Amino acid sequence: MICNNIGINEKGHITFAGQDVCDLAQKYGTPLYLMDEDKIRENCRTYKAAMDACFASALPVYASKAACFKRMYEIIAEEGFGIDVVSVGEIYTAMKAGMSLENAYFHSNNKTDFDIEFAIENGVGYFVVDNEEELYAIERINDGNAQKQKVLLRLTPGIDTHTYEAVNTGKVDSKFGSAIETGQAEEITRLALGMQNIALAGFHCHIGSQVFDSDTFLRGSEIMLSFAAQMKQKYGYEMQELSLGGGYGVRYTEADPEIDIAANIRQVSECVKADCAKLGLQEPKLIMEPGRSIVADAGMTLYSVGTIKQIPGYKNYVSIDGGMTDNPRYALYGSEYTLFVANKAKEAADFTADVVGRCCESDDIIQPEVRLPKPVRGDIIAVCTTGAYNYSMASNYNRVARPPVVMLCGGKSYQAVKRESLDDLIANDL
Amino acid sequence: MICNNIGINEKGHITFAGQDVCDLAQKYGTPLYLMDEDKIRENCRTYKAAMDACFASALPVYASKAACFKRMYEIIAEEGFGIDVVSVGEIYTAMKAGMSLENAYFHSNNKTDFDIEFAIENGVGYFVVDNEEELYAIERINDGNAQKQKVLLRLTPGIDTHTYEAVNTGKVDSKFGSAIETGQAEEITRLALGMQNIALAGFHCHIGSQVFDSDTFLRGSEIMLSFAAQMKQKYGYEMQELSLGGGYGVRYTEADPEIDIAANIRQVSECVKADCAKLGLQEPKLIMEPGRSIVADAGMTLYSVGTIKQIPGYKNYVSIDGGMTDNPRYALYGSEYTLFVANKAKEAADFTADVVGRCCESDDIIQPEVRLPKPVRGDIIAVCTTGAYNYSMASNYNRVARPPVVMLCGGKSYQAVKRESLDDLIANDL
Repeated sequence: MICNNIGINEKGHITFAGQDVCDLAQKYGTPLYLMDEDKIRENCRTYKAAMDACFASALPVYASKAACFKRMYEIIAEEGFGIDVVSVGEIYTAMKAGMSLENAYFHSNNKTDFDIEFAIENGVGYFVVDNEEELYAIERINDGNAQKQKVLLRLTPGIDTHTYEAVNTGKVDSKFGSAIETGQAEEITRLALGMQNIALAGFHCHIGSQVFDSDTFLRGSEIMLSFAAQMKQKYGYEMQELSLGGGYGVRYTEADPEIDIAANIRQVSECVKADCAKLGLQEPKLIMEPGRSIVADAGMTLYSVGTIKQIPGYKNYVSIDGGMTDNPRYALYGSEYTLFVANKAKEAADFTADVVGRCCESDDIIQPEVRLPKPVRGDIIAVCTTGAYNYSMASNYNRVARPPVVMLCGGKSYQAVKRESLDDLIANDL
Repeated sequence: MICNNIGINEKGHITFAGQDVCDLAQKYGTPLYLMDEDKIRENCRTYKAAMDACFASALPVYASKAACFKRMYEIIAEEGFGIDVVSVGEIYTAMKAGMSLENAYFHSNNKTDFDIEFAIENGVGYFVVDNEEELYAIERINDGNAQKQKVLLRLTPGIDTHTYEAVNTGKVDSKFGSAIETGQAEEITRLALGMQNIALAGFHCHIGSQVFDSDTFLRGSEIMLSFAAQMKQKYGYEMQELSLGGGYGVRYTEADPEIDIAANIRQVSECVKADCAKLGLQEPKLIMEPGRSIVADAGMTLYSVGTIKQIPGYKNYVSIDGGMTDNPRYALYGSEYTLFVANKAKEAADFTADVVGRCCESDDIIQPEVRLPKPVRGDIIAVCTTGAYNYSMASNYNRVARPPVVMLCGGKSYQAVKRESLDDLIANDL
């Protein structure tokens, strides 16, 4: 199995977090997002324990955009994480979950004045400043407040996650951050240091997503620390915090490698310590921003099978009662997933079909050319590793209601997000 | 201009439906969907007049999925259109708009039992039956009701819209409908004719989207009528209705051709009449299902400019306060759009930039390499031809609230869909 929270029971049904998913489909209906709360906590603790053990000072920060709803913030707060938020909507959700915003890091390449005002008023701990215009806007909007606004500066170290070469054009050329290579990173640092209403806490980079090689993070920290040393030398500025962003990969299929997060963090810490010693820097507070690797394998989506279409000489199609509305990742990126017929998990997978959604759109595909036991109407399809960027990216295309999120915890289940009703769909129609 | 409802006024501002869009941005805020009600009605009337003039019996049917909210159905109903609906959500929206469902055509490759029950209970006029399983389900669920359920059968005529060759494997190989080539279309016809609770009204096909060549529809009708003639000969069944689906292209950029819808419909009608005469068929009631060509050029989206980023030696980025959350079409399909800096419409377009969204995602691009007058923070960007598949595909990714839909009519404006609030975003969070 691609994750140890998936199993097969004596009925030949798929289990998730130890629970028979066919029973859950029966109880809550389909389509249905399941989230394994115990796995979320386990993933959090892997990061927390490794970072606490390896660094003098460290904070793991949950990248909310992977899966954002009130209950997620409660869990994250209990696990001692900070949060990475990217919009007023995420900040508001965290507030309504009763979360302190002291350790909230506010991202976005384009924060509006309203966003900045809202975040300052509500005590967001840190802005991760993308660009000079944002810096000027914060300086202006925070004028007159007693506290300086703490910021990290988002920099682009110029690393391509696929080639691991420094100063890759592809990454300098990004809508995010200020490039070290072009001198813009130094320029924004100099600017930040001269501002009255801003306290520069440190630097931030985010190298990529679905990264499996530890080298990438080592190169990232090396470049960032080298930049910090230059800033110390030139401007006498000592970086307090260094955020290396997120990006550790998760397993969508058996072909994806398993990452030892703790070992990776240990490697990063050794690299950071050695570089700091070499460069004459204080060891900064180390921030990491996992999102996908906290929630992806804690998620599974259940669908009911509808139409099975066999076109002789061509192809087979299995239609399910959800699709790109609840999981647009194949339509957007051609993402791979592992699928099961949940009530036929012990039967031979001898039928090949495209598993497609219910939208009136040819691109509405969950996964092409899947090998499955031949399903019939009413069977349950389980799609694994859907905890990240599924619920958060869901739409109401075709006026399809979004599924509920049901949490699994210690053998029990409870709803964290309700299923959308028909009245929800027209709630804003006048 | 790509559409005659776009202009430039004496202030050098873009106008839409005769109104200064900078004033509208000021009044309603950004991001903002505008819909030109007069253009929607004009587009409807083009279809209605041409179809009434050309066919003994005809009905244009609006493909709701292009843009679905209550006010759209009111307008469509007033213009004498039927509706193509693809979900219980669309049916419910039409009902709440007070629309009769007598001329509703219920599509979808995968109707659940619940969908079928809901549609029958609420008097949906027609099911466009995709496959045999659906036919069996309708037969079963409609048992005991006084009225037979009228259905069209969705068939795949085997036409590729890009090559115009009949019997193209690509189109036989579809998740939609029953293929004529494989004999499955005949099989489902025979099956439908034998059912007790179903009345077969006729046949349906949908050939593709963004079709600019009239040949495609002529070939489609030819193949469908030839099939109908075979069914008449073999089973004595006389088709009452023929739906040729939707698909006429719209202009996203100056490079797209203009289509003369009325001339196209006239051509189709001549072809249908000639084929019917030749094949010994009664002329069927002719259905067409425009969606995009009713609403696309009636739409415009307004954004405020935030960050302008110039990376020396690389590229420029203009960030706006919306993006793939309100218009995922570039991320999904690489769709082209025409953009203006609405408050600088008379200035030279001498700055090249990627216009990107505010989401924390590299793929969040509205349009790459656009030539514009160099914008500054606070300028208004207008994206044209966004009336179709923008609001209807919008998501809350990054917990970004969906924009309102403001209708423009006779020099006035009013809201048809309210802007989502922060509380809307957490409405279903428990």
